[in-house]
Amino acid sequence: MAFQSLADFAAILQALPAPDAAAIAAAEARNGMLTKPPGALGRLETLAIWMAGWQGTDRPSAKAPQIAIFAGNHGVAAQGVSAFPAEVTVQMVANFQSGGAAINQLARAFGARLDVHALDLDRPTADFTTQPAMTEAEVVAALLVGWNAVDPEADLFVAGEMGIGNTTVAAALASALFGGPGWAGRGTGVDDAGLARKEAAVAAGLARHADVLGSPLQVLRCLGGRELAAMTGAIARARVERVPVILDGFIATAAAAVLARAVPGALDHCVAGHLSAEGAHRRLLDALGLEPLLSLGLRLGEGSGAALAIGVVQGAVACHSGMASFAEAGVSAG
Amino acid sequence: MAFQSLADFAAILQALPAPDAAAIAAAEARNGMLTKPPGALGRLETLAIWMAGWQGTDRPSAKAPQIAIFAGNHGVAAQGVSAFPAEVTVQMVANFQSGGAAINQLARAFGARLDVHALDLDRPTADFTTQPAMTEAEVVAALLVGWNAVDPEADLFVAGEMGIGNTTVAAALASALFGGPGWAGRGTGVDDAGLARKEAAVAAGLARHADVLGSPLQVLRCLGGRELAAMTGAIARARVERVPVILDGFIATAAAAVLARAVPGALDHCVAGHLSAEGAHRRLLDALGLEPLLSLGLRLGEGSGAALAIGVVQGAVACHSGMASFAEAGVSAG
Repeated sequence: MAFQSLADFAAILQALPAPDAAAIAAAEARNGMLTKPPGALGRLETLAIWMAGWQGTDRPSAKAPQIAIFAGNHGVAAQGVSAFPAEVTVQMVANFQSGGAAINQLARAFGARLDVHALDLDRPTADFTTQPAMTEAEVVAALLVGWNAVDPEADLFVAGEMGIGNTTVAAALASALFGGPGWAGRGTGVDDAGLARKEAAVAAGLARHADVLGSPLQVLRCLGGRELAAMTGAIARARVERVPVILDGFIATAAAAVLARAVPGALDHCVAGHLSAEGAHRRLLDALGLEPLLSLGLRLGEGSGAALAIGVVQGAVACHSGMASFAEAGVSAG
Repeated sequence: MAFQSLADFAAILQALPAPDAAAIAAAEARNGMLTKPPGALGRLETLAIWMAGWQGTDRPSAKAPQIAIFAGNHGVAAQGVSAFPAEVTVQMVANFQSGGAAINQLARAFGARLDVHALDLDRPTADFTTQPAMTEAEVVAALLVGWNAVDPEADLFVAGEMGIGNTTVAAALASALFGGPGWAGRGTGVDDAGLARKEAAVAAGLARHADVLGSPLQVLRCLGGRELAAMTGAIARARVERVPVILDGFIATAAAAVLARAVPGALDHCVAGHLSAEGAHRRLLDALGLEPLLSLGLRLGEGSGAALAIGVVQGAVACHSGMASFAEAGVSAG
């Protein structure tokens, strides 16, 4: 096993690799020679150069993307924080496995491998308003599911999730990591009373676990969930393997934020795929200094927003790696 | 020939088809049954339903997109309105034909057919500051190039352009169609003096052709260019064939705006692919009531921003047409 304790995992986070500076310089030089006015491809140019740095080549690719979905159930769901019953988690996992969900269609559309990991769905985490959501052994096991889910040969990685109640879990993480109330949102569509229950659950959780708020990994253990911990582990593994990551919405970003709060720069290999309609996602992205690629009002989870952004990254690297230079094409450079 | 005069073309615009109301209703019903919370796919849902209306089916596709690029040269370029010399137009056409430009890479990435149409590059339009850019025969010929370029079997269409000086032409069209100064922008990267020359050229053009400002098709003839007229013709043909269109940036949107000003609703089959970094594009989209799908700082032309948005539309229709319903998947609908 890559790690057997949170202390082991924390040590890995202290030794994360940097991007390849030579590849970045070579990609920047190449970008300047391509047949277009300087900067005319906008963010596609910076995206391609960022991909180059993590892939260690001046001609990056995005032809072998991997999407991994993690599903979990949550003790806090019993507090009436979702518009859907908890059975939906296992039902949706079956839907992922039979190819009927949105993420299946998006994976196919962009040529991505899709893996589904159900984490102990019959054994929800404990209700964080009254006790830690997970023991150390449980959170380490969940981190390892994510860690082991990443294909080191993938050239782009997306972590997605499914878990009735997990916008409340993500709100609790965000509140614990960045402070303040107001992180709860409508999720799959709760009414005002449901939203109030979510805020109350988050507040109760933070009060109950006030002693661990200074430790991001303990925050993950006490207030997180298995699918969130798996995403945290997967995003860390992608960094170790230098696989660039597209972050999905509020829940995936909250799972990633654990890493950023543990080690500054831990998300340098990540780009925000989209701005979710879940209320606090913009606030969370701002706290992390991330600017989303897309803003189309999605709030589904499953990695769907990030999967859609795979197309943007594919377009960026296709231009960067495939275009002719001014010299090659015989075009006057202005 | 589909039309032989601007009057013929204007008559076609008075009889444009509407979307298929039954297909829209069926697509809306289908959308409500898919395995996701209501509205959770955000704009992807409205996009798919819009595609359904124009394709006349509740399960639209975007597997056979067509991109057509039109290139032209402009008399007004002699006024020093571009950072690049006019020879670049023909050089870039060769680059399109040999597969080296950004649009070639994007077309390949999203599986689109790409056609290149060079319109009389050795015969620039007249300088609109002193005389009409085109005769009636010339503008009709250019409209027909676009009209005939559209493949009626395509399930999605993008019109792109290349033409040194054509942001000035587009600014003149926008100013003539919607009024006011301030439509000129940096284009491929002119300095302050170049920007002032663009504004002056637009003002001179509008003053010279003040008598035609009430007629959108005469505006196109007097202030437009061949590649813009070709885009106007292509977008009109797509409507007649019920092929949905993704609009590219400022220049393509200006060409489309001619239709909108000629007949209200003439762009109902169009979606704005992206917000260009060209300064006045937002103003033009606002004037047309269009909200862009992407905003990534592109300002290249060639249809590149719209081509990138093909991926978004493909994701939208893949979800809509491929997802399972709650009943099919055995998922509780909340």
